Amino acid sequence: MFESAEVGNVVEKKAYEKRLERLRTDLLRAQHALASTKFRLLVLVGGVEGGGKTEVARLFLEWMDPRGLQVEAYGDKSEEEEERPEYWRYWRTLPASGRGAILVGTWYTRPIVQRVFKDISEGDFDMAMDRVVAFESMLAREGTVIVKIWLHLSKDEQRRRFTQLEKAPATSWRVSKRDWDFSSKYDRFRKICERALAKTGTAEAPWTVVEATDRRYRDLTTGETVLKAVQDAVARAELPEPAKAPDRTRPPQISLLTRLDLSKSLDAKEYDHKMMKQQARIARLTRRLRSQGRALIAVFEGADAAGKGGAIRRLLPAMDARNARVMSVAAPTDEERARPYLWRFWRHLPRLGHATIYDRSWYGRVLVERVEGFCPAADWKRAYAEIAAFEEELSESGVIVAKFWLQISRAEQLRRFKDRTVTPFKQYKITEEDWRNRAKWDAYQAAAVEMFERTSTPFAPWTLIEAEDKHWGRVKVLKTVADRLEEELA
Amino acid sequence: MFESAEVGNVVEKKAYEKRLERLRTDLLRAQHALASTKFRLLVLVGGVEGGGKTEVARLFLEWMDPRGLQVEAYGDKSEEEEERPEYWRYWRTLPASGRGAILVGTWYTRPIVQRVFKDISEGDFDMAMDRVVAFESMLAREGTVIVKIWLHLSKDEQRRRFTQLEKAPATSWRVSKRDWDFSSKYDRFRKICERALAKTGTAEAPWTVVEATDRRYRDLTTGETVLKAVQDAVARAELPEPAKAPDRTRPPQISLLTRLDLSKSLDAKEYDHKMMKQQARIARLTRRLRSQGRALIAVFEGADAAGKGGAIRRLLPAMDARNARVMSVAAPTDEERARPYLWRFWRHLPRLGHATIYDRSWYGRVLVERVEGFCPAADWKRAYAEIAAFEEELSESGVIVAKFWLQISRAEQLRRFKDRTVTPFKQYKITEEDWRNRAKWDAYQAAAVEMFERTSTPFAPWTLIEAEDKHWGRVKVLKTVADRLEEELA
Repeated sequence: MFESAEVGNVVEKKAYEKRLERLRTDLLRAQHALASTKFRLLVLVGGVEGGGKTEVARLFLEWMDPRGLQVEAYGDKSEEEEERPEYWRYWRTLPASGRGAILVGTWYTRPIVQRVFKDISEGDFDMAMDRVVAFESMLAREGTVIVKIWLHLSKDEQRRRFTQLEKAPATSWRVSKRDWDFSSKYDRFRKICERALAKTGTAEAPWTVVEATDRRYRDLTTGETVLKAVQDAVARAELPEPAKAPDRTRPPQISLLTRLDLSKSLDAKEYDHKMMKQQARIARLTRRLRSQGRALIAVFEGADAAGKGGAIRRLLPAMDARNARVMSVAAPTDEERARPYLWRFWRHLPRLGHATIYDRSWYGRVLVERVEGFCPAADWKRAYAEIAAFEEELSESGVIVAKFWLQISRAEQLRRFKDRTVTPFKQYKITEEDWRNRAKWDAYQAAAVEMFERTSTPFAPWTLIEAEDKHWGRVKVLKTVADRLEEELA
Repeated sequence: MFESAEVGNVVEKKAYEKRLERLRTDLLRAQHALASTKFRLLVLVGGVEGGGKTEVARLFLEWMDPRGLQVEAYGDKSEEEEERPEYWRYWRTLPASGRGAILVGTWYTRPIVQRVFKDISEGDFDMAMDRVVAFESMLAREGTVIVKIWLHLSKDEQRRRFTQLEKAPATSWRVSKRDWDFSSKYDRFRKICERALAKTGTAEAPWTVVEATDRRYRDLTTGETVLKAVQDAVARAELPEPAKAPDRTRPPQISLLTRLDLSKSLDAKEYDHKMMKQQARIARLTRRLRSQGRALIAVFEGADAAGKGGAIRRLLPAMDARNARVMSVAAPTDEERARPYLWRFWRHLPRLGHATIYDRSWYGRVLVERVEGFCPAADWKRAYAEIAAFEEELSESGVIVAKFWLQISRAEQLRRFKDRTVTPFKQYKITEEDWRNRAKWDAYQAAAVEMFERTSTPFAPWTLIEAEDKHWGRVKVLKTVADRLEEELA
């Protein structure tokens, strides 16, 4: 793969100047056109040490309008980054629609270095690359133009550069012991990088290997590659949007939901006793989260008036108020709308030691957005896999994920709606929209059943709660959380 | 001051239950009413150790709708918090309009503890309290309901509690060595807290000292105090908004701006030579930021087409692209609009070692917002002091602040506008709005002159740039940055 980047490409000064002038004008124009589309630009600059990754990043700041462009260099993680899943730092710095970022030292660096030094097996490395592909594919489908540049130098050329830099006092600081360490492993790096590029060069996010020996050739080729990608995106932005339509699938006659025994109940006395017991367990267990380097996420979904709020109000006070919070998921803000669907959830992830309770969640994509037709079918269909991957990442980083579906009967929902209508301090809980959603009861039930099937995983299982009787439902929620914590924090 | 909270207030169980039911209903109702106003609620819970600060915080999560309420307990700082000004953590967690937060361990804690242990002088302590008053005053004027609760225990009662907690195995972990250390200094703490409360009890953010011996009394009093404040805010929300009007002050005939010599210029050769020299200085100097625990903020203001973008495009590439970024200040997002004016600038502050260039800035408040009448006159008038305080905090935390005003003549602006109109790849730079702003030239000049007078401080001076000749202007900007860095990083 890299042979084609060891052929001695050069650009003469005259030709360079002419092409450069053209390139800069076109890049500025393309950047400005992109600014009014829903696309964002990500340029990943990878490659061998000494190939000039940061020089290239700097060039873009000169060539393009720096007001719409950021450079992100992912070096050592900050403590807050250490305390969250691996990809948090990439989500956190993701630019909004219409903007661009040049990324140096990305999601490729860690697996490649780990594999070179044999800290991970070949199987783990391949899995890491699969994750990269899934991540980039999601980004692409969510309106990201991904340009991946690999700056290549031959072994001899790399050594020549390091030696040259070291000789001059003004540049010697730029060559570190790490550079020479890496250089001594050049052949192994090359093999592993080839594997990485082969596995991750997709139609949505292709690699361009650039011979980096001649600077003029390197810079022009990189710039022109980016230009082409932006121009293509601007052209694509003019295509019509895919159609959106409500989904009115009917639920199966017998399903996980119909088989729930909604007659289960607890009387007031039993309830008080059991509730207190579970709250005490949770209070004790959540104190261990910090010392064990774990976090908790509890997700609540269910029909309107199923009792999500009530369950959360019992669960939350059992936790240390300093480390627990509720995220109530309503309409996205404009900053959230300008980024991929899952961004708004990544941004509020708990640090280790903390707990976050989601009152509705990322599952909105396959529930309300599906049923109401807020997004094209292709988007909610791919969401199952994206969500499973997201939760797997959470789990791997130490987050305990518990997911609850609170189920009531349609008749019970009606009773609760009526009660809300007549009780003064509950009136704010009931809106026109609740009544509209109620009319789509079957479609929501069908969506829920499919959701359980596709997203109940060993690391993030769904628990279905018989919530017809509030007492029973709440106690079951708290007991499940406590059991889960006990199991995970053994 | 605390004597009135050592009188033995108690509430009997029966009365408690009755008042509590009422309180909870009213609190929920008031919270819901607040949600649709522009106000946010901040409840600060302070007081002696053992008084039950976290218990009280937890209560609010039970009593109110936790979906609109967050608890923030500011314990040890994270590394990212350490690398930014003291108040960054408070800005960062500030709730949006309509929402509330219960704060435990706030901006009072550090100065009080430092003063008790004599790490700071009485003068420094008083200055810290002045900063608190200014901060809370700004919050209040920006639509924040501030309720400050001080939970008081007498010396004997505090000791009794600690001893009792220590005896029971289930609660002994709750008493730390730190608690006893603090307790042994009870009298000194009391004296200093009294001073803190006396200096910071304002009409906008009054203290309520609550006798915390009897839990029922403590909880009800706290809850009812918060309820009253929220109800008052809801009533205030119905008052008409203050009027906004454009400001058409004329500039003085002779001013800092009229006295600039706009004929200064550099020819192309001098320019290239000087530019390269200054870029090299900046490249060298910014590398020292990290090791010296400093950061850089450069602010660019000036009329449209004054050359802010051009100067930034020369300055930025001189810096390490990995640690430098441009913030272009356009219309605020909805998340920004839901918070105090300065929030959007706090959120993007550079970490130590980094540089941020602001293309337009917080000075919009006293420029465009003043001239166009986007905010009431009272708001932009208080902004001078708020901005000076903000920049002082930046400076104290190690940020080097450089501010540039790029000045051109009205005739030159017209030439540049016309050039933009006819040059294809510059057309996006010129909008209808630019022409409208041009018509208000005098008002903008007047606002700028007042701005220099009021906000040029030793720690954050303004530099006026003769920008009629682009060469001269850019070199002066870069030289000023380099000189400033050299001086500060000596």
